[in-house]
Amino acid sequence: MTAGRLIGVGVGPGDPELLTLKAARILAEADVVAHFAKAGNASNARRTVAQHLRPGVEELPLLYPVTTEIPKREASYRDTIRDFYDTSAATVARHLDAGRAVAVLSEGDPLFYGSYMHLHVRLAPRYRVEVVPGITAMSGCWSLAGAPVAQGDDVFVVLPATLSEAELERRILDADAAVVMKLGRHLEKVRRVLTRTGRLARAIYVERGTTTESVSVRLDDKRDDVAPYFSVILIPGWEGKP
Amino acid sequence: MTAGRLIGVGVGPGDPELLTLKAARILAEADVVAHFAKAGNASNARRTVAQHLRPGVEELPLLYPVTTEIPKREASYRDTIRDFYDTSAATVARHLDAGRAVAVLSEGDPLFYGSYMHLHVRLAPRYRVEVVPGITAMSGCWSLAGAPVAQGDDVFVVLPATLSEAELERRILDADAAVVMKLGRHLEKVRRVLTRTGRLARAIYVERGTTTESVSVRLDDKRDDVAPYFSVILIPGWEGKP
Repeated sequence: MTAGRLIGVGVGPGDPELLTLKAARILAEADVVAHFAKAGNASNARRTVAQHLRPGVEELPLLYPVTTEIPKREASYRDTIRDFYDTSAATVARHLDAGRAVAVLSEGDPLFYGSYMHLHVRLAPRYRVEVVPGITAMSGCWSLAGAPVAQGDDVFVVLPATLSEAELERRILDADAAVVMKLGRHLEKVRRVLTRTGRLARAIYVERGTTTESVSVRLDDKRDDVAPYFSVILIPGWEGKP
Repeated sequence: MTAGRLIGVGVGPGDPELLTLKAARILAEADVVAHFAKAGNASNARRTVAQHLRPGVEELPLLYPVTTEIPKREASYRDTIRDFYDTSAATVARHLDAGRAVAVLSEGDPLFYGSYMHLHVRLAPRYRVEVVPGITAMSGCWSLAGAPVAQGDDVFVVLPATLSEAELERRILDADAAVVMKLGRHLEKVRRVLTRTGRLARAIYVERGTTTESVSVRLDDKRDDVAPYFSVILIPGWEGKP
């Protein structure tokens, strides 16, 4: 029995054509294809790569536990999530021990804000592991918007919208270019910060980048503050360079 | 005569297999394939996509002017570079006016620290333009190193190594995760900063990510401070999460 192989496969931001050639090859070769999903929901990553799965390939859905009732900062939330990743890693490890090549799908880029990382840190010390990078969601967004983001010696920062209003303001003023992610119910707060810091005019709101329902508008032209969790605001830093 | 079409095509960090399916299709369809290069040097982007170019496709090399004698901060440098991008945009525009589809190759991701942006801002107001995102060089680097970079509500920052020592220190202390790029002759300075800020142990040095000559080592294990311009240091932010 040969040792198994774990491959974290970035599937990009949602457009099936933004898969890499390498990801397509790995998926065609894998013995097992694992993907994270919420119970009852189809996995976005699974949908993105559907046409590249070998007919009859063994699929391994890893279903997040239901945690909507538990506040994120509570210890019981962290315990539940940690148990879930421990159990998922053990399930994947059984396939690896049986000598199989297990591809774990990851929306965007596996090692950049991706769930795959939780398996990676648990399994990389013990198994042969490879990571196939993917186009990040934010790169899909600025490409869709046609917005040059950073150039030359720009300082570029990624900020979660969950930061406090004061922290967001301080950090946006301190960077040349920024992406604010995980907007959800924080859009009103982010809009106030951008208005106050003089960044509103160049801020771009992007929803569902590179899917067929994608939206890209100047934030100033968006009349409401309703945003899904996976929407972002781009604040391009690059202006008037050569 | 139909209107032409400009397509900024990200070719990723150097591994030809890290091209996207979309980029491969666009290159197979394009009438003209343009690429930036230094006079006398082969274009890295051109080499990455060589196998996807249509036989006999018209190629348009855009050769950077020689500027090694002119300090970067001088007005004459900026003038020379601006003239070069103006001339390049005019050359591409002639093909677009003739109704052709012109693909402009971009190492990494076109709108993220890429030369393509200079053509984009000049031509997007007048022509049909599309951008195909690519895997960034830094994503190639952290995938090669197997280093989970950022997770959850981490603040992630990209810093040019050209920043002053004090600025680098302040900004690294202020972020959860960081990438320091364009190392070149600045590695000794960056190492001092990482030592002082307690980040040396988790810093990873990556040279030529995803090429066959790639190097990835813990910075602490790298004995010299010799680094090419396109090497990076990764400072992963994500530790001990669930």
